[in-house]
Amino acid sequence: MFPWSDTTRPVDERVEALLDAMSLAEQIGQLGAFWPRPKSNGAGLNDVAPMESAMSSGEFEEVSADGLGHLTRVFGSAPIDPETGVATLARFQQQVQQRSRFGIPAIAHEECLTGFTAYGATVYPAAIAWGATFDPELVGEMAHAIGSDMAALGVHQGLSPLLDVVRDYRWGRVEETIGEDPFLVGTLGTAYVRGLQDAGVQATLKHFVGYSAARAGRNHAPVTIGTRELEDVLLPPFEMAVREGEVASVMNSYSDVDGVPAGASRHLLTEVLRERWGFTGTVVSDYWSISFLESMHHVADDLTEAGALSLNAGLDIELPETGAYAHLAEAVERGLVSEGVIREAARRILRQKVQLGLLDEGWDAAAAGRAVHLDSERNREIARRMAEQSVVLCANDAGVLPLRADSIALLGPISENPLTFMGCYSFPNHVLPRYPELASGLPLTSLADAVRAEFPDTRVDVVAGVDILDPDTSGIEGAVAAARDAAVAVVAVGDLAGMFGGGTSGEGCDSVDLRLPGAQADLVRAVLDTGTPTLLLVVSGRPYSLGEFGDRAAAVVQAFMPGAEGGAALAGVLSGRVNPSGKLPVGVPDHPGGQPGTYIAAPLAWFTDGVSNLDPRPLYPFGHGLSYTTFAVSDLALTADEVPTDGTLTATVRLTNTGERAGAEVVQFYLSDVTAQVVRPIKLLAAFRKVHLEPGASATLRVDFSTDLMSFTGVDLTRVVEPGAMKLSVGTSSENLPLVADFRLTGGLRVVGEGRTLSPTVTVE
Amino acid sequence: MFPWSDTTRPVDERVEALLDAMSLAEQIGQLGAFWPRPKSNGAGLNDVAPMESAMSSGEFEEVSADGLGHLTRVFGSAPIDPETGVATLARFQQQVQQRSRFGIPAIAHEECLTGFTAYGATVYPAAIAWGATFDPELVGEMAHAIGSDMAALGVHQGLSPLLDVVRDYRWGRVEETIGEDPFLVGTLGTAYVRGLQDAGVQATLKHFVGYSAARAGRNHAPVTIGTRELEDVLLPPFEMAVREGEVASVMNSYSDVDGVPAGASRHLLTEVLRERWGFTGTVVSDYWSISFLESMHHVADDLTEAGALSLNAGLDIELPETGAYAHLAEAVERGLVSEGVIREAARRILRQKVQLGLLDEGWDAAAAGRAVHLDSERNREIARRMAEQSVVLCANDAGVLPLRADSIALLGPISENPLTFMGCYSFPNHVLPRYPELASGLPLTSLADAVRAEFPDTRVDVVAGVDILDPDTSGIEGAVAAARDAAVAVVAVGDLAGMFGGGTSGEGCDSVDLRLPGAQADLVRAVLDTGTPTLLLVVSGRPYSLGEFGDRAAAVVQAFMPGAEGGAALAGVLSGRVNPSGKLPVGVPDHPGGQPGTYIAAPLAWFTDGVSNLDPRPLYPFGHGLSYTTFAVSDLALTADEVPTDGTLTATVRLTNTGERAGAEVVQFYLSDVTAQVVRPIKLLAAFRKVHLEPGASATLRVDFSTDLMSFTGVDLTRVVEPGAMKLSVGTSSENLPLVADFRLTGGLRVVGEGRTLSPTVTVE
Repeated sequence: MFPWSDTTRPVDERVEALLDAMSLAEQIGQLGAFWPRPKSNGAGLNDVAPMESAMSSGEFEEVSADGLGHLTRVFGSAPIDPETGVATLARFQQQVQQRSRFGIPAIAHEECLTGFTAYGATVYPAAIAWGATFDPELVGEMAHAIGSDMAALGVHQGLSPLLDVVRDYRWGRVEETIGEDPFLVGTLGTAYVRGLQDAGVQATLKHFVGYSAARAGRNHAPVTIGTRELEDVLLPPFEMAVREGEVASVMNSYSDVDGVPAGASRHLLTEVLRERWGFTGTVVSDYWSISFLESMHHVADDLTEAGALSLNAGLDIELPETGAYAHLAEAVERGLVSEGVIREAARRILRQKVQLGLLDEGWDAAAAGRAVHLDSERNREIARRMAEQSVVLCANDAGVLPLRADSIALLGPISENPLTFMGCYSFPNHVLPRYPELASGLPLTSLADAVRAEFPDTRVDVVAGVDILDPDTSGIEGAVAAARDAAVAVVAVGDLAGMFGGGTSGEGCDSVDLRLPGAQADLVRAVLDTGTPTLLLVVSGRPYSLGEFGDRAAAVVQAFMPGAEGGAALAGVLSGRVNPSGKLPVGVPDHPGGQPGTYIAAPLAWFTDGVSNLDPRPLYPFGHGLSYTTFAVSDLALTADEVPTDGTLTATVRLTNTGERAGAEVVQFYLSDVTAQVVRPIKLLAAFRKVHLEPGASATLRVDFSTDLMSFTGVDLTRVVEPGAMKLSVGTSSENLPLVADFRLTGGLRVVGEGRTLSPTVTVE
Repeated sequence: MFPWSDTTRPVDERVEALLDAMSLAEQIGQLGAFWPRPKSNGAGLNDVAPMESAMSSGEFEEVSADGLGHLTRVFGSAPIDPETGVATLARFQQQVQQRSRFGIPAIAHEECLTGFTAYGATVYPAAIAWGATFDPELVGEMAHAIGSDMAALGVHQGLSPLLDVVRDYRWGRVEETIGEDPFLVGTLGTAYVRGLQDAGVQATLKHFVGYSAARAGRNHAPVTIGTRELEDVLLPPFEMAVREGEVASVMNSYSDVDGVPAGASRHLLTEVLRERWGFTGTVVSDYWSISFLESMHHVADDLTEAGALSLNAGLDIELPETGAYAHLAEAVERGLVSEGVIREAARRILRQKVQLGLLDEGWDAAAAGRAVHLDSERNREIARRMAEQSVVLCANDAGVLPLRADSIALLGPISENPLTFMGCYSFPNHVLPRYPELASGLPLTSLADAVRAEFPDTRVDVVAGVDILDPDTSGIEGAVAAARDAAVAVVAVGDLAGMFGGGTSGEGCDSVDLRLPGAQADLVRAVLDTGTPTLLLVVSGRPYSLGEFGDRAAAVVQAFMPGAEGGAALAGVLSGRVNPSGKLPVGVPDHPGGQPGTYIAAPLAWFTDGVSNLDPRPLYPFGHGLSYTTFAVSDLALTADEVPTDGTLTATVRLTNTGERAGAEVVQFYLSDVTAQVVRPIKLLAAFRKVHLEPGASATLRVDFSTDLMSFTGVDLTRVVEPGAMKLSVGTSSENLPLVADFRLTGGLRVVGEGRTLSPTVTVE
């Protein structure tokens, strides 16, 4: 037995033994990947011939001549069922092994943001809807279910989650993020990482870092950002998932940050990620982003320079296929890269392969995966709970919800198209548009069917009126007639996710402004004009400006691509079977401009009196969301009103369900620095907990805040906790904070070290 | 005679003698200001009683107890004529002198962006129109005329020019800037500084720095920006005006830059401005911005701390009235400020007062000014040339211009309102809205009257159709009827400047997006629908998205608030009497979103193929502008195709007027770095020259570019010139560059020192 196959030896010893045995070329081989991407669309379900053809191409031979690091998306590139996928992956792994003197298989990676991106797999809500649940346990449960399916099939790594903090609602990938608050993103993202990794699949944080701040919300556009904003807003979720979640992998962002592409930034990929945070996993490239250093960013004259730049920066693995890293031997010859840097990157991926058992004596590609049903009842049950928990009741002033009408006009293009419930990385919206002859591969219920089922004794007239993107308004007349003829109208508008202009939301589907896409605003306006009480139901990937409609609609519900179980969840909210408990992970803007914008606002960012004619404050703020019951927060108490700058603030607060039905409320804690050496946001979310309560019941929450959570990047760019006046505000949204406690940080200015506490402790009694 | 009054002694000796004689309180007094701002609007012209009343208030007594630094806007605060103003200023100066043991008068400062902001003074084009002239000599001539008038009256300092580089067209103050290119802004801004200062009035650069990058283009909003963008885009115009223009004064920006308010930034106000660039003048505060450190930015607990923060940062004088600096003695007692820092600030303003002659033996307030006519024929002649040179002919595909029709429908709300020709700091738009009973104070010709005069034999029907801001569309019908009845329609739409929501452009008049304000787009659409050949004439302070109209209009003209002579200039362009030669100092966008945006774009900022559905490229690019004649550039030659990184690139190019009438063309030179260590813009304007040529004539331009002009802020944040491939492109707009010369920078990487060359040498033969 080779020493690297000996499971009785320590991991590091096995890795070093292997590295010692490998040539430079073999080490380089581990840093690349191959994507058996079908060059044509195949003949339908389970036609793997185009993938086989890619594997038998000279390209595969060339890049895998001395072994291969990753195999890219065997399940996610074409519609194949689990049986076919498992067999295909096994065959491909055998070919990879044959190309390696040591028989080393590849890490098989896949996409898995809204569930496993594979034919027939359960589609969970989009990430922005995870944010709306404010429920890390539930997100972790979902991720564990996703990971279990993937691991069973023989997949090793998933390219999720996104920890980009939303800065501009126009960006198409807002739907893929968890929201606009770094603590919310970090907490839910870390729960996802733990869930996926506990199931045996390596998670991948992306996109490190800055992507969400791309200029004008345009995909891949340059990022200009100050060091403090980077440190205090964009980096913390990544730090939390690295340090608390022990994530295995990180993917670079495409964009440049103030002129330095993330994929070429030693500062980001090594100094921050590894040296400061202690990350020991692999950094993988976003697809083709290493070659972009030459072709797009123009910071390298050729692919050899590009590869050298990335590898020296700390980027270990090139995805989705070896390109620039095919030139690493030449880079060594040209003196651009040292052999030691190559060995270090190879060490990182080989350590993962050893940890995943891929080098264990007796590992057998044919036995590495087994087919499982990817849309199990258990999956569906989690997807249903996620969907239900993520629907946000924004306004219900007229009390029209739950609906008690004897006739409903269900209008708008969301009504009959369940693809609108799914994000751009769901298999139906990501891959199946190329296979128009195939159905979605899993049972889907449209909103119309769900409403009909939910209201069996009610007349439900369904009229789309307009398309999502097509500006044709000729169908509005029919929708107006239906609204006039009904006791209540539900107008369901929003997004259809797609890729690179294929939808109104998703990667490469950025928006000019925050007006509802196409002619949907015309439809809403026309329906409101009928005078029929109208529920405005937005199902979207980004928030749209609803200021024109907020006062006119009888109620407003915001859902964020709720997944395969979305129809029933929405219908349940309409009927009252589901008591809404979602909270906005992004503000819903009043007017269609004002971007970039976020609730993380310095006083002058939201100041309106005489400074500007524009009021940037949202219609519905971050953290907002109503229920069919009512809640009260009370009895906020601090254990002390002075806390040393190296101490802990302990707060207790009581939540009571003051209404008449069971429900859940998210208690939110915001910290404010009254005066600081730099301009600070008016408030920042510092803790939250979703609590389910029966009517009349109450619970006491206790939160311990390390003063590390009050630190910020000071004038000299070090992280400090500063003595002085602070405020803790508690309530149920960022703008509904009835309880405020003042306290003082005492003692000296404290510089916060690298092992800082990133999360408070929350307990419920 | 006191030593400080002795003009035979060196300035510094006089200042030190005075400082030695002064108490701390007297030194502090020099750092403050008083604004005899009328608390009520007075009874009309020349009613100085409200100002007298302010001077006799306890406030003046309090802040001037030990002397006073500045007197704020005696001419610019209420409608008074030159005689009254001179007498009033003299009386106020006498009161200031009486409050000083040494009889030191104040520096009298005023606004002067579009001309002296005083009743009856010539209103020149807005600064964005200076940019459109691309003519530094003309800008300098204008500034000299402005300064001469101010100096004659006894005014010492003007709070102009703005050197903010446009980053977001939504910002209301775009009209006050010179454009979106730092070299253009720096060159024209420096010409303004020289012109004003040569006339004896201290210029003031504002707003140092970052203001134009305020989030979402919203006034005073936070600025997030990377160090490289700050160094390479926002700072260079200021550096040029400090080092080449030897400007006397600099004003801070209101905004914070990545958390540090500019008014509290020692890095900006001392390290960059004084230590790096050698600035020796005074830094003055933007109005009330020191107290904003407490009230808005929350970086100070009280005014004493705020004042200490600013003074220690390097901010010498508080404008418009002493507030935080009234607490400086207390700040010394509390140990927040040293007496040395106060003495240094006092030294800077006293040096200016000595240089201005204010301390000379025999200086007499009563003799310090004399009334001059502020709207002289000479002024008007310069204003007319500025206006004519700034009109940009964007498109004339159908050859409809010059107009040769026998009937013209002149439509749109610009037609009859000459106030639309003036910026927000013109007296008529800045002050007179508070005096509705007063006329503008100077002769103004509306576009309608100018067109009637220009086309005496043509039927001209004038219909506004819509208001600039009011969304009422009921008048469109009348405009459409007039268009149907005419051979050609001119639809004149755009902005009315105002302050803080009082207009559609100007300070505090930011925009949600780049749609034409109010219902003006509806008007344009309706007029185009008539089929009558239509000239779209935009007279605005910011560019608006014209993508919907560009292909449909017979011609498109963009003018930027052309000032008091705007009507005749525009009419002259319509008739052909004036041959247009303006160039766009900002791009005219295609769609109404995409902000922030600028032609200074890295490749990925403008890349469209498959990355995003949004195309950010403008309809009419930076530097674009047509003529009634045609020009050709030819014979681009470099003296060498290899240039040492510490050498000089010399290029020659020929410009020929290939058409049939005299005209002017702006030859533009753009440098491109093919590959660099950081992401660089695709191209940057590096030289330009406006050349007037008779038909058939040609001229040869020779440009010597120091390689300093090819430097940029590298990975390690030092300024470097890097060896490697470069391109010089020459043509007549940023997107019409038919001539390209490749060259290489050779030798080693060079770190560029602090005395770098900021301008090329351009000669014309």
